[in-house]
Amino acid sequence: MTVARPDEVRRFNRSSLLRLLHTGGPATRAVLATELGLNRSTIKMLVDGLTEDGVVEEKVPRLARGAGRPSLLVLPQPQAAVVLAVDVQVEHAGIALVGFGGQILGRNSWNLHGRQREPDEVITHVVESAAVLAGDLGMRPVAAGVCVPGVVRRADGLVHTAANLCWGEVALGQRLRTLLDVPVVVGNDAEFGALAEHVRGAGRGSADAVFVSADVGVGGGLIAQGALLRGSAGYLGEIGHMTVNPGGRICHCGNEGCWETEVGEAALCRALGLPEHGPRGAIVAELRELHGDWESRLARYLDWLILGLVNVVNILGPELVVLGDLFTALPEEAVARVGEQVRRRSMVSRAMGGVRIEKSRLGADLKLLGAAEAAFEGVLSML
Amino acid sequence: MTVARPDEVRRFNRSSLLRLLHTGGPATRAVLATELGLNRSTIKMLVDGLTEDGVVEEKVPRLARGAGRPSLLVLPQPQAAVVLAVDVQVEHAGIALVGFGGQILGRNSWNLHGRQREPDEVITHVVESAAVLAGDLGMRPVAAGVCVPGVVRRADGLVHTAANLCWGEVALGQRLRTLLDVPVVVGNDAEFGALAEHVRGAGRGSADAVFVSADVGVGGGLIAQGALLRGSAGYLGEIGHMTVNPGGRICHCGNEGCWETEVGEAALCRALGLPEHGPRGAIVAELRELHGDWESRLARYLDWLILGLVNVVNILGPELVVLGDLFTALPEEAVARVGEQVRRRSMVSRAMGGVRIEKSRLGADLKLLGAAEAAFEGVLSML
Repeated sequence: MTVARPDEVRRFNRSSLLRLLHTGGPATRAVLATELGLNRSTIKMLVDGLTEDGVVEEKVPRLARGAGRPSLLVLPQPQAAVVLAVDVQVEHAGIALVGFGGQILGRNSWNLHGRQREPDEVITHVVESAAVLAGDLGMRPVAAGVCVPGVVRRADGLVHTAANLCWGEVALGQRLRTLLDVPVVVGNDAEFGALAEHVRGAGRGSADAVFVSADVGVGGGLIAQGALLRGSAGYLGEIGHMTVNPGGRICHCGNEGCWETEVGEAALCRALGLPEHGPRGAIVAELRELHGDWESRLARYLDWLILGLVNVVNILGPELVVLGDLFTALPEEAVARVGEQVRRRSMVSRAMGGVRIEKSRLGADLKLLGAAEAAFEGVLSML
Repeated sequence: MTVARPDEVRRFNRSSLLRLLHTGGPATRAVLATELGLNRSTIKMLVDGLTEDGVVEEKVPRLARGAGRPSLLVLPQPQAAVVLAVDVQVEHAGIALVGFGGQILGRNSWNLHGRQREPDEVITHVVESAAVLAGDLGMRPVAAGVCVPGVVRRADGLVHTAANLCWGEVALGQRLRTLLDVPVVVGNDAEFGALAEHVRGAGRGSADAVFVSADVGVGGGLIAQGALLRGSAGYLGEIGHMTVNPGGRICHCGNEGCWETEVGEAALCRALGLPEHGPRGAIVAELRELHGDWESRLARYLDWLILGLVNVVNILGPELVVLGDLFTALPEEAVARVGEQVRRRSMVSRAMGGVRIEKSRLGADLKLLGAAEAAFEGVLSML
């Protein structure tokens, strides 16, 4: 008869504790015991073992107040496990070394123009840059997470297409695995953005959330019942290629009137009267200068944003939608209006008593953090 | 230290075995051992215990062939656990008693017109009809599953709205629970249709599938990573209320150009030149008479069907889409064309190497079977 063996149980408890420290940050033994439903002697044994292995450290909190001896805090030791996070965007690429606990320990980034955007160039630069960074910090990553704005097969990291990068059928996962000599997980950037929001951002505690981001393209990542949806063979979340305007502009995917053509970067440029494909900074500056004008100048753009969000909420019933990337530059009042309209127009939102629509607050590091989390998934259980 | 106790393990193994027999049907001990990864003596002990309790029976298969003694088959005993399945549609309602193993043991149905469609009338009729059926068969259901074409809160079975039934805020779950005196689970009809396809239909073995059905309204149920998606608070799958034609017909949900307005029953009537809100039989008869004409007469209708399916496939990345209800009356060639076009136009399908689009083959019992499965979810672990 199969029964769980004590060493399996210990390993399970140990990895639950590591996950809790990694996502929740430093905590006292008492809090860890409550959260994990384990007794004090089990927690003591686990923490002592992890301290001995250099994975955690116990310290008196700096700002201990009140009467009595302050409780010791269990702190994750960042260098206990370091992963490489890579975020390839259309205009630039960034890498970071991220430690256990989610702290960025060092980073580098560079612009992508012309030939630099080609797969060979990007791969070479990532590998070289990662080696330099690891050397500078004296750390060796044990896994890597990489995100690209494209359609990615999760199993092996094949980039089927990344239209805005002009990539097709790039064996990115396989090639980086060979060159970096660590496990590599590759994903769609919006998908990893959703993971970051779920673990460290606005989505913490929301079991059903959708992350929608606008860059050159528009993508989405879906959290359902507390986990990142993967789709068959790891493909999904091409929310930007939902047709919302039949007969509208031709999209690079071959269809007409994709949501991306109405709410992506080019559409926002058109709404603002800026030349398409201009620098991102110009768009953000123009949005900041809108003040009271946002209602008239963004009206049509926001209508398309609302329409697509109503669709997403009706199909998936999330409690929260997080808007990322370029959407975070929209005026607060505009985002408030979008939320209000989606709550009014979506029958599922009405039934739920109102979906929340929020901007991402993780800033430019969002996708790096998501890529790091994807890499950590296979690492924490090995510590 | 927490370890799984032997009786917990035994209970877990027993309920895994019951689930396998319930969904997979009769099997030999050897097959059960392989599927569950248990050894022969554990299987023997479990099967002996279940035989003693009258939950299974071991029999020589009727068509035993070949040399040697035929292996005994372990058969689920339908009367070991019987659930009540209720399918409330716009034009009619049906109930069935379904036994362990998924067999329909008895049924009843009636039309719904005018006052009969009101919640009080439906509830009374369901309860009375269930009592008569249970009396006739000499069986007492231990749980009930109920589906309605509406927006349903899974936690307590509140029907927020069922527009085509003209229901709003009906505490269906609570009221039936009181009257039937068994646990009651209420869900959206397309959601339970998806569950039936997943457990017993075209979706068996597909971890990521979408079920889309057209009746008066259009709804969807989503299977992701092998489980039915629930959405926040149990609300999701209102695929029919995805806007596909901005500026199009007004929908009862308050928006314009919902997919439902382009591919629901009324839209199909318009395509066929039949009066809207006519009898279902007339639509099916007209579709059967189309022969070579389907291309010209259904062209526009199919375009909208394809457009919505491309959206669904791009967002969710399923390996399979099952078309239910009225869609099953479409000519085979039309469904083949739809599949071909969706595979061509969806970038996610292209990446996956082709989504399959199939008609439901579970027929008119689909939603009853789904409601039964929803009820069985809480029952099998108690046997």
